[in-house]
Amino acid sequence: MRGAVIHAPRDVRFETLDDPKILHPTDAIIRTAVTCVCGSDLWPYRGAEPVGDPHPMGHEYVGFVEEVGSEVTGLRPGQFVVGSFATSDNTCPNCSNGFQSNCVHREFMSTCQAEYVRIPNAQGTLVATDGTPGEEFWPGLLAVSDVLGTGWWAADAAEVKPGSTAVVVGDGAVGLCAVIAAKEMGAERIIAMSRHASRQKLALEFGATDIVTQRGDEGIAVIRELTGGIGADSVLECVGTAQSTQQALHSARPGGSVGFVGVPHEVAVDGQELFFSHVGLRGGPAPVRRYLPDLIERVLSGRIDPGKVFDLTLPLEQVAEGYRAMDERRAIKALLKP
Amino acid sequence: MRGAVIHAPRDVRFETLDDPKILHPTDAIIRTAVTCVCGSDLWPYRGAEPVGDPHPMGHEYVGFVEEVGSEVTGLRPGQFVVGSFATSDNTCPNCSNGFQSNCVHREFMSTCQAEYVRIPNAQGTLVATDGTPGEEFWPGLLAVSDVLGTGWWAADAAEVKPGSTAVVVGDGAVGLCAVIAAKEMGAERIIAMSRHASRQKLALEFGATDIVTQRGDEGIAVIRELTGGIGADSVLECVGTAQSTQQALHSARPGGSVGFVGVPHEVAVDGQELFFSHVGLRGGPAPVRRYLPDLIERVLSGRIDPGKVFDLTLPLEQVAEGYRAMDERRAIKALLKP
Repeated sequence: MRGAVIHAPRDVRFETLDDPKILHPTDAIIRTAVTCVCGSDLWPYRGAEPVGDPHPMGHEYVGFVEEVGSEVTGLRPGQFVVGSFATSDNTCPNCSNGFQSNCVHREFMSTCQAEYVRIPNAQGTLVATDGTPGEEFWPGLLAVSDVLGTGWWAADAAEVKPGSTAVVVGDGAVGLCAVIAAKEMGAERIIAMSRHASRQKLALEFGATDIVTQRGDEGIAVIRELTGGIGADSVLECVGTAQSTQQALHSARPGGSVGFVGVPHEVAVDGQELFFSHVGLRGGPAPVRRYLPDLIERVLSGRIDPGKVFDLTLPLEQVAEGYRAMDERRAIKALLKP
Repeated sequence: MRGAVIHAPRDVRFETLDDPKILHPTDAIIRTAVTCVCGSDLWPYRGAEPVGDPHPMGHEYVGFVEEVGSEVTGLRPGQFVVGSFATSDNTCPNCSNGFQSNCVHREFMSTCQAEYVRIPNAQGTLVATDGTPGEEFWPGLLAVSDVLGTGWWAADAAEVKPGSTAVVVGDGAVGLCAVIAAKEMGAERIIAMSRHASRQKLALEFGATDIVTQRGDEGIAVIRELTGGIGADSVLECVGTAQSTQQALHSARPGGSVGFVGVPHEVAVDGQELFFSHVGLRGGPAPVRRYLPDLIERVLSGRIDPGKVFDLTLPLEQVAEGYRAMDERRAIKALLKP
């Protein structure tokens, strides 16, 4: 089969690779329906994280079950399945507590920009749809498996409630999906922080009521002004830098909540500052599996369309161009078709 | 009148001071019924915080209304009142959100180890009891105004739920009151971390089910062992050092919650570590005013007796001995009677 391999910063190649095989009786092999490039893939691509030896890339996928291991009884070849970037047995104590992305058997996916993919913990990770959804739903379901699930978790961790005010920091695909989540959870006012016209447009389409283009102290001042001088009930941090984290913490009202879902890079939170703010802070890799049945239903019923975050569609063999377009911010998110 | 003044580390004197006066129409003057020494008073006493110029001390009080300002319509001289270390108007947006200790008009009390005290924002801060409670209730009501209110907030911020497992880090008066709070909120298992026999005894009396004497990595390992290998649902951090904060964060299960109520001293939380733990973190000065009516009722009905944390009673004029006894850990908490 063929798939993407990163060799060095800005050097992603489409190569012939070994077909994946069942390694454990809990594995499944899927044939990729669609996959994509994630904002977090850009960290190594830009050299902001070490690349190390050449290795496959990608952790987002929907596909068709090709083969299952002997212990996978709930899935059969031919089914269309949606999964998550973090695999889970869905039975351990952490899974039972709703934190499947902290499953004691968790493995992070990392080989999904390819024609076939091995899925560990298949039974607890994959959710099969009733029949094969029309191709028009595939982008939305692909978004569910990562960026919408992550935006949903941001809103959940930030305790968005009906009638509340939410601020979304970050206008990447996760931030835009976080707008959908805040809207679905009933936020009355949704302030999206964005400087890019195409992203602002999509944020408004997804339910944002206000756009703030300022950043840093200036951005915080505008948020204060828009929220009666005290800050927002919920802030959804979808970037992961020190600056965006500070912006998020200072945009929340006393006693408000920050959900942070961008993997933090060189972020330290001062204990005394957090203390006197009364702000609650919770984040982490999204427990997508917890939300899958609900989010799949919202997409297939046409209630939401997170697939709109894909503004570039390429054949999988042009994966390198997908990285380039996202790196140069020519695209919000690149969908890849095998 | 007379009251305590700190001149330097380990130098607290009982001196003649000016009688407090109504400075603003929202003030009240109270005659102190009982007051006490707080664990946080030991930071400057021990030189861990700068003392600066000589100044009065104390932020815990219950007393009798002596005089009220012209805008204080809800209180009258002679009433017995319970307050909080943080004053609040109880009407601003932060107060309405339940964070009275972040009131836009907040003033922290700091002159309460004295015969008379001026209370700013009196109407929104003080809660009068029905009639004057018997003297046997004064220690409990005094605890309500600070250490029980703070322990209650620790349990609230740590999201203690019926049937859950809670760990209390810190065996000072706040930690012991946090055990009461966890018990009242329905925690099934309450693990108190304590090395001191008298404090262990009180923790058990207040509802602790387990005592852990180990600290640091060893303590964390014991907590893991007691909680099915994953950690506790809720951790109540009642100290405020870097070590106790790390202990709290590592004692919580993935997706668990830490409530931190000890004022953090040189504490920084690593963003990536917090991220991958899925642990929620919320703390701050306790919004005692939110809890006052409920906690006063629990004390006066005899349901709880947080006054037991006072294991030393002294005349106010011996305030310096109160500090010494707590500094040397001869006493958990010293009650002072004018």
